[in-house]
Amino acid sequence: MSSSWHQQPVKTVSEPMAQAARDHFARLSGPPGALGALEEIAARMAAMHRSLRPEPDPCQLTIFAADHGIANAGVAGMTDDATPSWLRNCLHGTSASAVMARTLGVRYEVIDVGLAHDPGPLPGLLRQRCGSATTDFRTTPAMSEHQLGAALAAGREAVERAHAAGCRLFIGGEIGAGKSTSCGAIACALLGLPPETVAGPGSGLPAEILSFKAQVIQNAVDHHQRFFSTPLDVLRRLGGFETGALCGAYLTCGQLGMTAIVDGFCSSIAALVAVTIHPALKNWLFFGHRAAEPGQYAIFRGLDSRPLLNLDMRLGEGTGALAALPLIRTACALLKETQPTAP
Amino acid sequence: MSSSWHQQPVKTVSEPMAQAARDHFARLSGPPGALGALEEIAARMAAMHRSLRPEPDPCQLTIFAADHGIANAGVAGMTDDATPSWLRNCLHGTSASAVMARTLGVRYEVIDVGLAHDPGPLPGLLRQRCGSATTDFRTTPAMSEHQLGAALAAGREAVERAHAAGCRLFIGGEIGAGKSTSCGAIACALLGLPPETVAGPGSGLPAEILSFKAQVIQNAVDHHQRFFSTPLDVLRRLGGFETGALCGAYLTCGQLGMTAIVDGFCSSIAALVAVTIHPALKNWLFFGHRAAEPGQYAIFRGLDSRPLLNLDMRLGEGTGALAALPLIRTACALLKETQPTAP
Repeated sequence: MSSSWHQQPVKTVSEPMAQAARDHFARLSGPPGALGALEEIAARMAAMHRSLRPEPDPCQLTIFAADHGIANAGVAGMTDDATPSWLRNCLHGTSASAVMARTLGVRYEVIDVGLAHDPGPLPGLLRQRCGSATTDFRTTPAMSEHQLGAALAAGREAVERAHAAGCRLFIGGEIGAGKSTSCGAIACALLGLPPETVAGPGSGLPAEILSFKAQVIQNAVDHHQRFFSTPLDVLRRLGGFETGALCGAYLTCGQLGMTAIVDGFCSSIAALVAVTIHPALKNWLFFGHRAAEPGQYAIFRGLDSRPLLNLDMRLGEGTGALAALPLIRTACALLKETQPTAP
Repeated sequence: MSSSWHQQPVKTVSEPMAQAARDHFARLSGPPGALGALEEIAARMAAMHRSLRPEPDPCQLTIFAADHGIANAGVAGMTDDATPSWLRNCLHGTSASAVMARTLGVRYEVIDVGLAHDPGPLPGLLRQRCGSATTDFRTTPAMSEHQLGAALAAGREAVERAHAAGCRLFIGGEIGAGKSTSCGAIACALLGLPPETVAGPGSGLPAEILSFKAQVIQNAVDHHQRFFSTPLDVLRRLGGFETGALCGAYLTCGQLGMTAIVDGFCSSIAALVAVTIHPALKNWLFFGHRAAEPGQYAIFRGLDSRPLLNLDMRLGEGTGALAALPLIRTACALLKETQPTAP
């Protein structure tokens, strides 16, 4: 695997197949566009999979767990000592993502890509640690070049495994302390946003600390921005191992031709980095939901995309993307099985 | 069955059980309210079914098919000669609702409660005809007292059958020509709205006919309104057999203690009539989606309710409610199976 694999182009999608799907729906009983967003979901699946019978299953959810060096600087509602128990809940099948994946028949795996406190070998936990949390990015890059490469590769390999197992759809999730501050900083750097518009409550931050969080983001962007010449520079200096893994995962989805459902705020930041590298990657992504984080609006504007759901969720773990999965399955079934007139 | 069965009260729901569900979610990893709307869906299901393990299945979809006398007056995108083929598509399992119900594992039935053109006995079609379309309501009540009673009873009996079969969740759908004009008129009469705010494109009406549709609605409301002393007067004079059946179905859901997912514009009008009769019925209803009809906004304001999805669907047939069903199933699974810490 070349160190510049991420520069390889993503697969093209078939616009004629999308149009054929739209034509199918136009012939059904009812007014034009009667099935609303489901028609366009199906058309996009047809375009990606070059078929009027696109298959959304099997579906894989991979959760990347890592902590951020910034987590213990007073900007995060959750410090990094809480992450291991969260992760054990996933492995025991009692976290929200594990319950949803089981209910929906989605393959499930959790990878430690860099918790601050190494939980050691745990049954069911994959280990691909890029470090023990990133470095506090206030004055130093969050990741070394080597660490960024390892994080991207962790995501790439997860999608390659899913692809080899015949999966058609990939969902990435993330767990970790400090992620919303890091992701807010990336959003400000890539989209030129003022930090107040992205500094949200994260994992339960009290309102009075939000201005401090915004200041931390502003200072970090000011400190690093003269080194930003590519999107990966921004990711390396401000991001996390899990953001890097998600970015690598989405890029690989586009390169291998797998559909991805992007989860909430942090996942959409990883998608933003990946789409900035390859704009055509957007053709392979669904945005599952609009997370209840203020920065989420700006990201969707930046990506010119509309999320499928708006349920005020803000957990991460891939839960918002999982909530949207039934819509994609339903849309594919409608394209495959509806008929304009009774046979 | 007394002719005034609809006046019987609806069952109460358990607010302590809803609070216990909220308390469960508050103990999970992640920020407060991290699962967003899914938490409140689960809390409402817990309140309705008085259990922290509420079961949403089996689920029944019953489609009520009927035409409106107003359908051929130039206000409907679809005239009543198109209804039988639409209905046959449902019976053959190739309509959107049939495909979705099959995909989602939902029991499915179609009842002719009054098509203009009697399709005769068809395999799988239930017949409970209240007439051959309603009367054109421009100058005459759409239904007689007897017809309204028969329509309400068709809905009641569908829910009673579902309840006897052990169903926990009921979805009503509708098919028919002229329904959006009729439902718009009911909305104007019950909510005091100007007709321009509810006269939408229905089943594909060209924009230039919308003002005529609004005028028809205004004239009908003006003509009948001195006879409006109860919500059922409005339903009888302006509504359809399928609206009556849906209204009867929702009332019965509340009386028997079954959850209902209300579909789009026409179903929400039937729900509005039913909730106007019994405000506490709202506790038993989820609103599946916001249909792409202009009147839909006003109905939700009138009902003080928020739909689960916003997918720009406008087919009817229960499809919008079916699209929302996985959210309710997911919410129930989350309440039942998530744990605050790994066991």
